[in-house]
Amino acid sequence: MTRKELIDQIRSKKSFLCVGLDPDADKLPKHLLSEDDAIFEFNKQIIDATADHCVAYKPNSAFYEAYGISGLHSLDKTLKYIKQNYPEHFIIADAKRGDIGNTASMYARAFFKRLHADAITVAPYMGRDSVEPFLQFDGKWAIVLGLTSNAGASDLQLHELAGGAKVYEHVLRTTSSWGTPDNMMYVIGATKADMFKDVRNIIPDHFILVPGVGAQGGNLADVCRYGLNEDIGLLVNASRSILYASGGTDFAVDAAKEAAKLHDEMKAYVK
Amino acid sequence: MTRKELIDQIRSKKSFLCVGLDPDADKLPKHLLSEDDAIFEFNKQIIDATADHCVAYKPNSAFYEAYGISGLHSLDKTLKYIKQNYPEHFIIADAKRGDIGNTASMYARAFFKRLHADAITVAPYMGRDSVEPFLQFDGKWAIVLGLTSNAGASDLQLHELAGGAKVYEHVLRTTSSWGTPDNMMYVIGATKADMFKDVRNIIPDHFILVPGVGAQGGNLADVCRYGLNEDIGLLVNASRSILYASGGTDFAVDAAKEAAKLHDEMKAYVK
Repeated sequence: MTRKELIDQIRSKKSFLCVGLDPDADKLPKHLLSEDDAIFEFNKQIIDATADHCVAYKPNSAFYEAYGISGLHSLDKTLKYIKQNYPEHFIIADAKRGDIGNTASMYARAFFKRLHADAITVAPYMGRDSVEPFLQFDGKWAIVLGLTSNAGASDLQLHELAGGAKVYEHVLRTTSSWGTPDNMMYVIGATKADMFKDVRNIIPDHFILVPGVGAQGGNLADVCRYGLNEDIGLLVNASRSILYASGGTDFAVDAAKEAAKLHDEMKAYVK
Repeated sequence: MTRKELIDQIRSKKSFLCVGLDPDADKLPKHLLSEDDAIFEFNKQIIDATADHCVAYKPNSAFYEAYGISGLHSLDKTLKYIKQNYPEHFIIADAKRGDIGNTASMYARAFFKRLHADAITVAPYMGRDSVEPFLQFDGKWAIVLGLTSNAGASDLQLHELAGGAKVYEHVLRTTSSWGTPDNMMYVIGATKADMFKDVRNIIPDHFILVPGVGAQGGNLADVCRYGLNEDIGLLVNASRSILYASGGTDFAVDAAKEAAKLHDEMKAYVK
């Protein structure tokens, strides 16, 4: 999907919501557990219930890999279901891969060609030759980890380099020269909203994928204050607060309500 | 596998060789391509040919994920084959995962419980809560990326922090306090052999997984000069130089010869 197509979708829906598809078997509604593929059935109902409110879906690959080959089947079916029924939605494989050259190309093939994802999250630790292989596909995106929403972000990302920049600022500055705002985005956690001003100084034009709103405590208004740019430039992700809004037979109805709440908040920001 | 079991195996075989199982369909011997599962057949013959020369196998998950569900089947079968026929070998899932809390636990479950790997490679960018979930399993290991063998290592890992330490030195120092030499190892590339002295100052006791010998140009003698400790403390990986020693029907014979060459070199270092 091109940047223009993504922006058009955001403007027409007045939403920049991304729904994280992280199905945890321990939290699935009980009545689904007798299904042949409970994970897919859960995802399908979540997708149908939230599609009008969001512009993107983000399955985290760990939640599928944990169930081995059957989990991979669920992931395959989920992405095919989105592509067939909601082809305008942007699909992010949240895989946080980071490997070099030929190996990175293997991952690119796995996620872009086989799974038909539009984007994959990528870790920056191994440098240029671990990111560039993901930038060789028309209409596909690498989403580089910049500043993450977890406590461990302070163990490396927030440390200061000899020149004065923080590690995550160096990552934004360096990696952004390897691609363009048409094929790269960044992960910046909502829990670090006070840093969005600094982030936007370095990458004014890139889209930012923002996890951490909702269950992790991040706040949409704080993120928007400095995060928005003239193309909106944000994809704000919510997972648990939507997926597990309730655990009963009407879980999808409650998921839709949670997604609608965020959608309503977002409408004010999309002029 | 415990540290003691690994060291005992190294001493009894006089080898600290790890064979990387990175089967690339474009490079497999032609006569195998008609097999139902060419990747597994290739791995099986490589394993049978090299088992006496090495103490560990390291499949890189990208090479399996690239083939989707059939690739996952090949990986499953490969690890089961090793466990059944060569139970003393240490199995490293080279997956370079890095995600937080619950998600990291999902990966740990996938690689340790379902695939029966002894160790998984882990990226340090997201910090403590992305590494600790891998340290909660008896006899299982997290192998953290320290200083990698690729050109891109200079984009972040070799940068200097405000306090004077390089980023990779900070990673070694910080992360090593989260576990022990009994459940953590580090990746340090053979192409950075001149830095092994500094590395050993920070982590004198940990095992180091060393990629980059052979096809990538790293040299065993250089690595051993400063890398060896009193428990040997090294697992030196070779992939392409062994797997693709020749491409004919006798590829496994030639793979064994390449592995034997490295084994012979190693014997001198294991007293």
